[in-house]
This record gives sequence, C-alpha cells and structure tokens, in this order.
Amino acid sequence: MAADAPLPVRRLALIGLGHIGSSISHAARRAGLATAIAGHDASPAVRARALALGLVQEAPATAAEAVAGADLVFLCTPPGAFGAVMREIAPALAPGAILTDVGSFKTAAIEAIAPLVPPGVRFVPGHPIAGTEHSGPDSGFAELFDGRWALLTPLPDSDASAVETLTAFWRACGANVATMAPERHDLVLAVTSHVPHLIAYCIVGTADDLEAITRQEVIKYSAGGFRDFTRIAASDPDMWRDIFLNNRDAVLEVLGRFTEDLFMLQRSVRAGDGEALHAFFTRTRAIRRGIVAAGQDSPEADFGRHARK
Amino acid sequence: MAADAPLPVRRLALIGLGHIGSSISHAARRAGLATAIAGHDASPAVRARALALGLVQEAPATAAEAVAGADLVFLCTPPGAFGAVMREIAPALAPGAILTDVGSFKTAAIEAIAPLVPPGVRFVPGHPIAGTEHSGPDSGFAELFDGRWALLTPLPDSDASAVETLTAFWRACGANVATMAPERHDLVLAVTSHVPHLIAYCIVGTADDLEAITRQEVIKYSAGGFRDFTRIAASDPDMWRDIFLNNRDAVLEVLGRFTEDLFMLQRSVRAGDGEALHAFFTRTRAIRRGIVAAGQDSPEADFGRHARK
Repeated sequence: MAADAPLPVRRLALIGLGHIGSSISHAARRAGLATAIAGHDASPAVRARALALGLVQEAPATAAEAVAGADLVFLCTPPGAFGAVMREIAPALAPGAILTDVGSFKTAAIEAIAPLVPPGVRFVPGHPIAGTEHSGPDSGFAELFDGRWALLTPLPDSDASAVETLTAFWRACGANVATMAPERHDLVLAVTSHVPHLIAYCIVGTADDLEAITRQEVIKYSAGGFRDFTRIAASDPDMWRDIFLNNRDAVLEVLGRFTEDLFMLQRSVRAGDGEALHAFFTRTRAIRRGIVAAGQDSPEADFGRHARK
Repeated sequence: MAADAPLPVRRLALIGLGHIGSSISHAARRAGLATAIAGHDASPAVRARALALGLVQEAPATAAEAVAGADLVFLCTPPGAFGAVMREIAPALAPGAILTDVGSFKTAAIEAIAPLVPPGVRFVPGHPIAGTEHSGPDSGFAELFDGRWALLTPLPDSDASAVETLTAFWRACGANVATMAPERHDLVLAVTSHVPHLIAYCIVGTADDLEAITRQEVIKYSAGGFRDFTRIAASDPDMWRDIFLNNRDAVLEVLGRFTEDLFMLQRSVRAGDGEALHAFFTRTRAIRRGIVAAGQDSPEADFGRHARK
C-alpha cells in the first residue's frame, strides 16, 4: 500500500460478519474504501448470508484464507475470540498489513492480540462507539458510524502511517476519530456504556423476577421508562459477557461509585428529602442537553418515536 | 351530562397545562371530545402560552374559575400539588361533575384528593402511562396517548357511569384502558417507571461526579448506551420528586430487589462467571421481544434514530 495513496485499500478483510462487521462493509462500500472485501465468520450460515447480501465478495471457510493478501484486517468477532482468531490468522497476515479490532474494551484486547502480531504487521487497536440492540449480518447499515466516535488506542510502537490510514478510513465511514490511552478508554467506556448496560440488564431481570407482577403487566405498562432499558438489555449476550469478563476492574470501580450514589438517593427517598432529590434531578438535565448539543442524540421527544407515525 | 350521550362534554377543565395537560387538550380536540376547554396553570406565562397555542379557550387566573361549570375536570399539576388544588377548587366543582387526575402514583394521590371531594362530585383516579422527557405547554401533542395504556383505579364507591365516561374519553384519545387497584398500580409503576427513573438519574449523576472523566468525555462518548439513560434522566424534576416522596414504599421494595440482583451480577463479574452473565443477558432479550410484540415500542434498531436521517 503506497504511503501517499493509502485508500482505497486493495483488499479489506473482515473477520466476524455480525452487526459491526457488516456495517463496516456497508460504510466502506458507500465511500469506496476497498477494491475488494473478503470476510470470514465462524458460522457457515452467516458466511452464506454475507455473500448473498453482497457484504463480501469472498467468504472462505477459514479466517486465514480471508486475511491472505489483505492490506487492512478488521477483527469484528466477539472480543473473547480475539486470541483464538489471532493464533489462526497470524501466519497468513501479509507483511505491511494493517491489523485493527473493534473490541469494546482495549487493555485486555491488546493483551490478547499484541503478543501474536507477526513482525511487519502494523497493529492499531480501535473501537467505534456505535451499535444498536440488533446483531447478525442483516443488522448492519452504512449510516451506523455517521457522527459517532471511533476511538483508536495506539501502542507506543504503533506505526504512525498505519494510524493515519485507519483514521482516514474511519472518517470516510462517517465517524469522528480520537486517540487515547487504552486504560483511559476502558474507564470512559465503563461509565458511558458498560455499567449502564449492566444496570439495564439488571432492572429488566429484576422486573421479570418479581412474583407480585406478571411479565404481561411489565410488558403492557413499560412505556413509563422501562422500555428504554429493555432496548439496551436486548443487546448481544456473547459480546456483553466478554465485555464484563475483560473490563472487570473499570466496571467494578464505576459500579462501586454507582451503588454508593444509589444508596444516597435511596436514603433521600426513605427520609422524604424532596430538596435533595430535586437538586439531583435538576443537575442531570444539563448532561442530556450537552449530549443533544454535541449531536450524539436527537432532541426530538421520546427519540422521535411519535413524530415517525 | 346525559348518561346516553356522555361525550362530548360541554366544558372540560384542565388544571395544570404542562406536558400531560396540553397533550390531553390536543387529543381531546382531535377527537372532538369537548365543546369548550378551560384551563388553569399556576404560572401566568404558561396560561398566556396555552391561550396562544389554542390549548384552551379560557385561562382564568384561579383554578376555581376554571372548574366552575365544568362537567369533566382533570388534575394535571405536579401530583404534590393535588391537596392544595383541591382545597381551592372543591367549593367551585359542579354537582355531578367527573373529577379525575393523571398522577403517576395512586394511593397517595387518592389520600390527598378523596377527602376533599364534595358530595355529588364523581371522583375516578387515573394515570395515563405516557410521556416524554420534555415538559411545559409547548411539549404536548395529540398522539402522545395513541396505543399507550391509561389506567383507572376506581374507589369502591366510584360512580360506574363516571368510570364508563372516562374510559370512553381515554379510548377516544387513542389509549387502551384498564382498571386495577391503587396499590397494585403503585407496585407495577414502581417496576416499570419509578425505579428505572431513579436508576437513570443515579448513573447520570455518577458519571458526572467521576473525577477521572470529564463531562465533555461523557457527552462525546455517550452513544454506547448512556445517552438512553440521559433521556430518562432529563424528565421534569418537580414531578419526579413528588413521585419518589409519594410512592416511597413500593419504590423502596423494588429498589431492594434491584440492588440484590445487582450485587449478584457484580459478584459474577468479579468472579469471572461468564456462564451466569450470559444466561442472565439471554433471558432479558425475551422481555424486549414481548414489548415490541405488544406494540409498546418500535422494533427498529436504536429506536429508528438512523432510519430517520
């Protein structure tokens, strides 16, 4: 790949053809970022579907065949599989190839991937902060990354031109790009994603467990706020198991802070301290306004559910 | 009001012209449910705005004037104000009038309202499970109640024809209607609305408090799930303070169950028990599917945020 014309790449390889892998294919084709796209998924049915959808031109039966000759390789499997995938593809990676991943945690992903990267292959860890509650090759779409942030967490020895090419790739996919240290990434994501997901999974489970309330009642009367939690709690169980197993320290730290704060609010409820509750609820509105102002969500009421009717 | 032609009412009175009051006006006018609509709000600016928006034909300076001669009166103020409002309007309520409220908790609302209802006035407590994160007279719209549930919690001595008329009113506003005991309502809502809101407020506050992360980082990288919590946590602080002060027992009961479950999940994270986490996360997906199948949310990815671009 010539340094002065890094994009389009000649051959893009997507290992894992689920929600993120398929969306990268859509976004890359929308922007003409690759002359050819090959892909592999552990599931034969997913490989067949990816071919039928035109996500890839080739879907060989092994990941090693998919990465052979590729100048840009994305690891898009559930992050728990990164080590196993690397052991398989390492011998087949082309010298000079850029290798990246989309894992939602970075420290443990780097520990799994970096030691297995062959000399001459340029590894730049990454994570696009985007996704929906759906999974599988049919759930991807080109606009997923538009206006979202792709974070790169380069290693001290990451190749600068590889970081540049990957930055250009993500920008062409519609994303904003920032770089940060892997440890900082993991703490930020524990706050903005991992702990919120754990809490959402938890309250949905609690509601389902209550003997006094039927599941049908929970479902019928969910519009009071609960349904938003269920959307989050419908996310891919494989991926989220891997996230909690691999970003444990940051998750437990943020969770500890959350439960302290929750006990404080619980105490205010028990004591009938309306002033404390009101002050807390007023402060959180400012953060919502910031998110809407930063273009990270729609200002429309209820996410525009009603406006779309 | 003749029993055989209960709707449209001659004069509908809306006390409180915020999100729910203004939406009732829109929905009632869409369906032609009232010959005239009067309204009162404690804020002179809101009264002026309600007149300018055409929400009401009259917006007198006192709630007593607004209810005078009305055959259907809705209490739509923050529920903490119900007692004060009742003390003011009780002498002005017309004999035979139907009186209802839209409070998010019912036991405490009934305790505040029922003792002040004059003889001959027919009180039927109610609660439409609908709303967005916005508030004020400009935030209402006619479709808010479409397909949502309006719960009525009649008292043992509630007038049957008043319950019928109110049921017809809510159905004409687009809602489904169910009746249940006030105590059951309060427990169901603690699960489907009150505790989820408290949790959402809490995690948004926790994120804002973390010294290691800036508010700008939280805002930029919120798309991983956190932004959905901020929508909920942007809801009206006055109303939510009143809810937690008045549905305390049910909220504390559900919150106790939630924290037990959260500690169990926390223990699984700490112990690296991937099997337990995966089983929990798989179960919660079924509830999401139920909510979508019941028409209480959109099946579109990410609430259709992307599809709308």
